[in-house]
Amino acid sequence: MKATLEQIAGLTQGRIASGDSALAVTGYNTVEEAEPGDVTFFGNPRYLPKLKKSRASSVLAPPGFADAPSGMAVIEVENPTLAFQAIVDRFGPLKFNVEPGVHPSVVIGTGVKWNRDKVYFGANAVIENGAEIGDACEIHAGAFIGREARLGSGCVIHANVTIKDRCIIGSRVIIHSGSVIGGDGFGYELKDGRHIKIGQVGIVQIDDDVEIGSCTTIDRARLGRTWIGEGTKIDNLVQIAHNCIIGKHCVICGQVGISGSTRLGDYVVMAGQVGVAGHLTIGSQVTFMAKSGVTKDYPEPGVYTGYPAKPLIEGRRMMTYPAKVPDILERLRSLEARIKELEQNPSPQA
Amino acid sequence: MKATLEQIAGLTQGRIASGDSALAVTGYNTVEEAEPGDVTFFGNPRYLPKLKKSRASSVLAPPGFADAPSGMAVIEVENPTLAFQAIVDRFGPLKFNVEPGVHPSVVIGTGVKWNRDKVYFGANAVIENGAEIGDACEIHAGAFIGREARLGSGCVIHANVTIKDRCIIGSRVIIHSGSVIGGDGFGYELKDGRHIKIGQVGIVQIDDDVEIGSCTTIDRARLGRTWIGEGTKIDNLVQIAHNCIIGKHCVICGQVGISGSTRLGDYVVMAGQVGVAGHLTIGSQVTFMAKSGVTKDYPEPGVYTGYPAKPLIEGRRMMTYPAKVPDILERLRSLEARIKELEQNPSPQA
Amino acid sequence: MKATLEQIAGLTQGRIASGDSALAVTGYNTVEEAEPGDVTFFGNPRYLPKLKKSRASSVLAPPGFADAPSGMAVIEVENPTLAFQAIVDRFGPLKFNVEPGVHPSVVIGTGVKWNRDKVYFGANAVIENGAEIGDACEIHAGAFIGREARLGSGCVIHANVTIKDRCIIGSRVIIHSGSVIGGDGFGYELKDGRHIKIGQVGIVQIDDDVEIGSCTTIDRARLGRTWIGEGTKIDNLVQIAHNCIIGKHCVICGQVGISGSTRLGDYVVMAGQVGVAGHLTIGSQVTFMAKSGVTKDYPEPGVYTGYPAKPLIEGRRMMTYPAKVPDILERLRSLEARIKELEQNPSPQA
Repeated sequence: MKATLEQIAGLTQGRIASGDSALAVTGYNTVEEAEPGDVTFFGNPRYLPKLKKSRASSVLAPPGFADAPSGMAVIEVENPTLAFQAIVDRFGPLKFNVEPGVHPSVVIGTGVKWNRDKVYFGANAVIENGAEIGDACEIHAGAFIGREARLGSGCVIHANVTIKDRCIIGSRVIIHSGSVIGGDGFGYELKDGRHIKIGQVGIVQIDDDVEIGSCTTIDRARLGRTWIGEGTKIDNLVQIAHNCIIGKHCVICGQVGISGSTRLGDYVVMAGQVGVAGHLTIGSQVTFMAKSGVTKDYPEPGVYTGYPAKPLIEGRRMMTYPAKVPDILERLRSLEARIKELEQNPSPQA
Repeated sequence: MKATLEQIAGLTQGRIASGDSALAVTGYNTVEEAEPGDVTFFGNPRYLPKLKKSRASSVLAPPGFADAPSGMAVIEVENPTLAFQAIVDRFGPLKFNVEPGVHPSVVIGTGVKWNRDKVYFGANAVIENGAEIGDACEIHAGAFIGREARLGSGCVIHANVTIKDRCIIGSRVIIHSGSVIGGDGFGYELKDGRHIKIGQVGIVQIDDDVEIGSCTTIDRARLGRTWIGEGTKIDNLVQIAHNCIIGKHCVICGQVGISGSTRLGDYVVMAGQVGVAGHLTIGSQVTFMAKSGVTKDYPEPGVYTGYPAKPLIEGRRMMTYPAKVPDILERLRSLEARIKELEQNPSPQA
Repeated sequence: MKATLEQIAGLTQGRIASGDSALAVTGYNTVEEAEPGDVTFFGNPRYLPKLKKSRASSVLAPPGFADAPSGMAVIEVENPTLAFQAIVDRFGPLKFNVEPGVHPSVVIGTGVKWNRDKVYFGANAVIENGAEIGDACEIHAGAFIGREARLGSGCVIHANVTIKDRCIIGSRVIIHSGSVIGGDGFGYELKDGRHIKIGQVGIVQIDDDVEIGSCTTIDRARLGRTWIGEGTKIDNLVQIAHNCIIGKHCVICGQVGISGSTRLGDYVVMAGQVGVAGHLTIGSQVTFMAKSGVTKDYPEPGVYTGYPAKPLIEGRRMMTYPAKVPDILERLRSLEARIKELEQNPSPQA
């Protein structure tokens, strides 16, 4: 990488607040790993102590930032994280953008709708009968697209993903390796001591601009659809059960599990390992902290934590209350002794 | 869908308790999503308020049900959920029942026992040397059946499942995509600062009528077998470690983890995200609520919750007790003040 | 299996402490499942009651062991677990060691570096352009090796594993089926109400002698690398987020989740379902018990439990403290009544 501070300011639509516009910028990295010559970025106040010790020669920082270590050039940008991304896009490792093309090993069923000149089908991908694949889709090696499944345009389906029959995927959806979309929901009815399987004849619908991590499972509905709303981002190893409805622009972190028929509003955030019971309604702009257990409706926006989940401050206190028990017991013992004393000697000074 | 109430009663082996037998039934759906003309079902008392507002024209309900909204026809059936299933089976989306056949891309090793006319092997499936596949089995695209693995009849092994060598699968077993049966157990012995791998030379045995969800992992035994009993149902993203023995007709929900050598009786239920330590014995008809942590034997039937798991009522109270600490502290402060007062003024009225 | 006690002592480098050296040893098994004639091993004091009832004819036990049931021959060995492993290796089920060879269905891209005579590539494996595979590597059926990924020598990549582009894998690394190495990290920046994807252009680096279980996901770094240190063992369904650095010889059990940019020292142990927040530093020789929630740095060696995780004894007490609340409330009520009595009758005996 070879650029000047001025060129970086141009690329990031920023303003040089301090430093020589001709300064050579020879690389980019995080505050911790930057070397002299590198540009870094300050996107999270948590990193200020590390920025103070960073060897970077320049930093992208928000307007008005005044805490850069002496000698470090500053480019002011509206959003340092996104501005840094522009540098990575420009100077980063070559992306392996795939070219349209169909590997000879691909298995394509009958009645598949697709444009051979406008898709990428990797080695050993399997596209079943009646599926529909939009233009600019990438179906990577070993991925499986079930019968009559439909993908919009510009989707990236990574290696070894499984999308089952009749599921409907919007446009610009990214699904990472190992994930399974449209497996049967987990539904049985106990009869004469045996669990009878309830047919799961619905589908999964995933709307535009959703991204789904690796080894995540989204089950098809019993009837109708399990539905992931536009712009929602789902991390790795997440379980979303049958008939759930996830709103728009939600963020569901790793190893979250959401039980059947639960509905989320928009902009819901669930941190890692949250568990949600079935048939619940979670309102828009609700956030659950990591490992929360969600057992009832949360219609109101807010941040919740704990099991059962409570508003953040109360929930955090709940975690600390047990630690007060030893002191409580000590004070109780003292009170009991003093009362006994009073009862036995009611008027010591009389 | 085109039927009369009488035909629906016939199909579901039910009795028209109210409504015109000639009523046109034009669809089926859940209480929440039903439209006029649809038949719905009332299988869970929790849904009564929603049934009251449902637009369905008729409902399958248990004998003696008297709470249907006015104007909604009622068919009495023994089990509304299963009766509704009969309607779905009859009028639901066309199932993609596979026809026997072997896709030309399938890779079949030497010495495999199977009947070409009675199985379905999907594209790119791999059947290794010496495996044995029963009649009416479906091995879907990209699935892997390891050396000398044996499957009974009527199994459905979905796309991209991995079944490792020598594992024994019964009849009518369903395994959903992404799951891994027979990976090595997690066993090491620390020696001179390094973890030495302990050979995992046992197998996994899965008995008849088991269903296993997506991206679930069941590890092979160190010696002998990891064993899943007949009729047990396992959800997505479940971890079952080496040498576990799971009884018959258990229900293991999403993201449960069971450590090595633990044994479960029959009809054990584990709700989502339960974690179980190793080398434990869990009796038959034990239920653990979601997120429970199981650290000791539970020989007695019952419902348990919490970490460590306690009987349901006690376990639920345990979750509420910390909330009482602020009140306890306030009352302690008050008592301390009053005692001090008494100690300083022992006979205020004297 | 046909051997004498003396031969078993020789094989395990042990010493016959009791029993006839000519005793016939006809099998091997765990204490619980051993039959007469079998040799077993005593590697964990927890199993002493079971050893007392074992039907085994001989046992491998540590030096000085004096608790064998009467009539059971004893071979003293330094490490009974590893010594038993030698018996399993010698007499156990035939291992399906693969022979070097490339299945005709394998898809190999351009510029791949490998030695056809020294690797095993299973059916339908896909090796993308520019990848580099060391000698004695096994790439099993359906596995995917991305562009310019590099594997050292002696690796075992099981069926249906996905390793994405540019990841670097050391030597003797074992990765079990369904796992995904190098999926994109979970990083977005909210702008105008939409989550903008942050490019994840780093890699995953896995050092020598690491073993990774089934359906585990290790995300590539945003920049630089997500790094798994030498000799570390990772179980099934584990999530390791972007930019994590895991030290050497760590043990990460099933369903653990570690958030982005967290760093672990060496010999860290995480039991099942532990969750770790992002950007933390965990020192060497730290152990977290099952289901712990880790929300801050733990620089000091030790064993921790709970959420938030505390030193073991304190953490275990924290779990029991809520159970004391009913007694506390009862004692409070009693004190309040007694104080009221004293306040109303300050000098009852006067």
